[in-house]
Amino acid sequence: MTQPDTTTCRVLFEPSGLKTEVPRGATLLDAARRAGVYLTSICGGDGYCGKCKVVVNEGDVDTPPTTLLSQKETREGIVLACQAKVRSDLVVTVPKSHALDTARIVVDSDAHRFSEMTGEEPGRDLFALDPLVRKLHLTMSPPNEQDQLADHERLYLAVRRQFDAPHMQTGFRILQQLPDILQKAGYDATALVALRGDVAEVVDVEPGDTAGCNYAIVVDVGTTTVVAHLVDLTSATTIDAEATYNTQMHFGDDYIRRIMYAEEHDAFDEMQRRIVGDVNDLIQTIAVRQGIGLGCITSVICAGNTAMIHFLLNLDARRIRKSPYVPAAGWIPPIRAAEAGIRINKRGLLYCLPAVGAYVGSDIVAGALVTRLDATDGLKLFIDIGTNGEVVLAGEEWMMCASSSAGPAFEGAGIRHGMRAGPGAIERVTVGDDGSLHWRTVGDGPPRGLCGSGLLDALAAMLQADVIDRTGRFTDTHADRIAEGPDGPEFTLVPAEAGRDAIVMTQADVANLIRSKAGVYAAIEILMQMTGTESDALEAIYVAGGFGNYLDVTSAVTVGLLPDVPAERIHFVGNASIAGAKMAILSRQAMAKAEELANRMTYVDLMNHPGYMDAFTQANFLPHTDVARFPSVQARLAGTTSQQDR
Amino acid sequence: MTQPDTTTCRVLFEPSGLKTEVPRGATLLDAARRAGVYLTSICGGDGYCGKCKVVVNEGDVDTPPTTLLSQKETREGIVLACQAKVRSDLVVTVPKSHALDTARIVVDSDAHRFSEMTGEEPGRDLFALDPLVRKLHLTMSPPNEQDQLADHERLYLAVRRQFDAPHMQTGFRILQQLPDILQKAGYDATALVALRGDVAEVVDVEPGDTAGCNYAIVVDVGTTTVVAHLVDLTSATTIDAEATYNTQMHFGDDYIRRIMYAEEHDAFDEMQRRIVGDVNDLIQTIAVRQGIGLGCITSVICAGNTAMIHFLLNLDARRIRKSPYVPAAGWIPPIRAAEAGIRINKRGLLYCLPAVGAYVGSDIVAGALVTRLDATDGLKLFIDIGTNGEVVLAGEEWMMCASSSAGPAFEGAGIRHGMRAGPGAIERVTVGDDGSLHWRTVGDGPPRGLCGSGLLDALAAMLQADVIDRTGRFTDTHADRIAEGPDGPEFTLVPAEAGRDAIVMTQADVANLIRSKAGVYAAIEILMQMTGTESDALEAIYVAGGFGNYLDVTSAVTVGLLPDVPAERIHFVGNASIAGAKMAILSRQAMAKAEELANRMTYVDLMNHPGYMDAFTQANFLPHTDVARFPSVQARLAGTTSQQDR
Repeated sequence: MTQPDTTTCRVLFEPSGLKTEVPRGATLLDAARRAGVYLTSICGGDGYCGKCKVVVNEGDVDTPPTTLLSQKETREGIVLACQAKVRSDLVVTVPKSHALDTARIVVDSDAHRFSEMTGEEPGRDLFALDPLVRKLHLTMSPPNEQDQLADHERLYLAVRRQFDAPHMQTGFRILQQLPDILQKAGYDATALVALRGDVAEVVDVEPGDTAGCNYAIVVDVGTTTVVAHLVDLTSATTIDAEATYNTQMHFGDDYIRRIMYAEEHDAFDEMQRRIVGDVNDLIQTIAVRQGIGLGCITSVICAGNTAMIHFLLNLDARRIRKSPYVPAAGWIPPIRAAEAGIRINKRGLLYCLPAVGAYVGSDIVAGALVTRLDATDGLKLFIDIGTNGEVVLAGEEWMMCASSSAGPAFEGAGIRHGMRAGPGAIERVTVGDDGSLHWRTVGDGPPRGLCGSGLLDALAAMLQADVIDRTGRFTDTHADRIAEGPDGPEFTLVPAEAGRDAIVMTQADVANLIRSKAGVYAAIEILMQMTGTESDALEAIYVAGGFGNYLDVTSAVTVGLLPDVPAERIHFVGNASIAGAKMAILSRQAMAKAEELANRMTYVDLMNHPGYMDAFTQANFLPHTDVARFPSVQARLAGTTSQQDR
Repeated sequence: MTQPDTTTCRVLFEPSGLKTEVPRGATLLDAARRAGVYLTSICGGDGYCGKCKVVVNEGDVDTPPTTLLSQKETREGIVLACQAKVRSDLVVTVPKSHALDTARIVVDSDAHRFSEMTGEEPGRDLFALDPLVRKLHLTMSPPNEQDQLADHERLYLAVRRQFDAPHMQTGFRILQQLPDILQKAGYDATALVALRGDVAEVVDVEPGDTAGCNYAIVVDVGTTTVVAHLVDLTSATTIDAEATYNTQMHFGDDYIRRIMYAEEHDAFDEMQRRIVGDVNDLIQTIAVRQGIGLGCITSVICAGNTAMIHFLLNLDARRIRKSPYVPAAGWIPPIRAAEAGIRINKRGLLYCLPAVGAYVGSDIVAGALVTRLDATDGLKLFIDIGTNGEVVLAGEEWMMCASSSAGPAFEGAGIRHGMRAGPGAIERVTVGDDGSLHWRTVGDGPPRGLCGSGLLDALAAMLQADVIDRTGRFTDTHADRIAEGPDGPEFTLVPAEAGRDAIVMTQADVANLIRSKAGVYAAIEILMQMTGTESDALEAIYVAGGFGNYLDVTSAVTVGLLPDVPAERIHFVGNASIAGAKMAILSRQAMAKAEELANRMTYVDLMNHPGYMDAFTQANFLPHTDVARFPSVQARLAGTTSQQDR
């Protein structure tokens, strides 16, 4: 079926039946985009994530060599869509599990989780619905000889009829276009108004009533993952969500490496281009899927660590990695989104939540906001585990925070079968009465890997089932399921079956996970030491992060990630960064509260803290060197062991 | 001395001795600019003002035919510098009276006049010195490991140490540059802060202490004349001033004609280019003369009629001339001056004072501000005579305003020997006891023409000396000095002498001046009728306009321009537009007061007022058809007549 002389090739995608024509030489990923087939492409088409696998059923493609496909896959006609170049007419099958909806489950259930926490949608009950950018439908009477009020004042009068704004502002370009817009619209128009202090700025004016069409994009700008939600500002509901990997990953797994790279290669512009591109891609995907024009998206709010926000806005990030570790800005005023290259309404605004400092970013402030750490009567702990592990300990009168470089192990990075929470991700691992391990996947389909909650469970289960000892080393108990793999010994969690490989946990995976949890626990310990806090005094522990749909709190205590407090005091809050940012974009009260929280938090620099390395070393055990700190775990392990002994 | 083959020619200007080289074919005006010789060029080099006359002593120029030079002048080697093209090396003499300083006298004495009125400089005593844009010198301690505050927050903290700003904003570009600026400056920097409501916006940050270098340009954007003052915002003093003709004059004498022209020729951009160019030329001239960099000029404030402000900002001016006569905007927020093309500090602001409506502009609001019409216990009248004549009548509880198309006769336009107030301008004409006419020029030099105050005096004197009768027609009394000229009969005010022509008043000039004054008087009459005001009740009459250094109030009453009230109640206030705008740029309180005044004034549309035409017709006499309204004039004329009868 090869047609080497044809310059345009037809590509048919199965099972959707969508088809397109592309120039010969285009990539399959381009063809898919053109056909409206959404493929998971978490590296943005750079060929390193290996997630955009498709099967070429008929026709020819050019594919460069890659280590991301096994020989078996290659034999089966599987290619990376981003790397495969179209040489002829093609019939391609998109494996169901690789279509883009893999990403949607997590973000959707996040939205639900916060619905439960805050009544309905975040912000709605706790704070009044009062968004930064609102649309006001204005019905004005046209001027006549008895009413010669200027167009601009007529507009202001109509705005002020809807709310009190002592001072008003208008963008100059809008002022120039105003007479034309109002006359053509018969003085029936909608104003886009942004509020700051007692100043209301008319940002845009559109003919007719478009007040119902007012959306915001809420973005969690993670080092590894970028998540975007679409929020209807009129009804305060979440409409859709989408996630992607941060394509800056090309330049380093953590942001310190990325800053170094950018400095060495003069690549801060490129860093901005990448992350802005990722955000734009998410916005575009959601907008297309929902049939919403970009003009209806009037604001974007972002939360993320300080380096990511600096990259996003191309603020000087260099001193984030160099003493005295000073950001360009913690608080950043709302700017025009277009100034940062973000494509929404061309006059729409971009607001980034404020950060505490170089190592405690606005994602943590968002978490403190959504868990209402400021409204505590006793002591509360907030922990966000992403690429780094940030901890906030809040008393009635104070708030301390710290950051540990936990590494992105619980996000699945650096873990052989780590993956995002999506169909086929093992999200739950339990130990049966007989010491056998059981698992459950998202969507109950065939297992493809482990997401954060599954990894945590697996670590706890392997400890309880005596697969590993308290140092994390494989024991001889299940020697039949341990084999030597390319990275050293590995434990087979799910044996291979026809059509799929085994899912394993390597010795290196276990060590990685233990280091991650030890970093977080040591940070908690230092803050508790500094404030004289005992575990018993903790009223609540909120755990945020991309673990998946849920987190087993017993597992978290078992491995020594969290202090040993009763399970009912531990709450998994999912992506708190998104949830807090959503609150802030829905309510200026919440936005002001976030700014207050950022100002109130005291940052503790763990790297300069004399006790931190000790605490970290001691935490590099399961659950801890000092097992007496974890009485419930001690009891549980004793029980399991005795059970196994029988 | 002709060198036809040379492509570059040397031009020497006498008496300054300044010289330059220009390409053959360049105009003498270009050569003068290049040599640093400032010539009066009120039409901007378009060859219709006839003011840039120079004498070519040696060498050849090409000159097109012009009616602006007499045969005698041509014989003497006089050419229009803007029209004369250089053909060879030249020696040129610039007549002293034609150098640019002709413009300076008026503006300088305006500054003095307001110094007298308001104590020192306008704004200083009445309102607190609190400019829209201020510079704050900030001495910050550089960050260290004990003080990791972000640069942006460090800046805000330093700003807030100097004054309370509940909300702050920062321009995005400044935010991006901030770390670099602060580090290079060792955290010793100056912030440019613009204030609006309770929001303070950091507009720019400069290294070191530049707080002493903060200037504003105050512009009166007139239909005929554009005047600019340079004000030091630190000391609230006026440093310099400059004036030029509005080069839009090319497209019509009044703004209605210019709007029509722009509509017909799609020339609104060109209109903006012209007026912005005029303003930029004034700024440039002043800045060069004072050795001040444009970067130190941080704001521009403009006042002018509504059409001029619309032209300046390229706002839709079309409905100013069409029912229902609605401007795009009366109130316009401060914008970045660069957005309108005005060249000052690239982040500097432009604020235009608010207008009342299509026909009562911000120049009138400025006048109401500077004469404190809002602070009246009784009744006050404000009259601004420029190209139009606007009138404001203010009571304790109300303010009425109206506009009459007076025409620019008192600005010298359409008057044979009318000119701006400058050296050689006849500013004063009196009648001697013997009925003879006497005159005095600005600078006491040889007479060159008549400025506004001279024209008003001349009209009054000619009436008193029986040169004209109460209808304005020439009588036979001084038939020896009346001759037939190109425009009909003309009265020789100053006979010709060796080296200069006679200065005359033509029958058409007289009719023109009477029409102008009648329009203004009729407007006053209608407002007084509508409010039931009697002349006796007027506590004060403020007269503004470009009459010159002063105005003889007796003459103004004699010709019937103003109601017959005791002379001590009439105050000539010169360019009130500049003075009010200066107040506003020096004090945000004054700016807020101007906005309040614009809102409070009620506009009366004279064109739709049934009594206006009648009132106008009756006022087309000297002083008025109903001479009983002017008892002091009646008495004076009777006295003069009886004197002449002797």
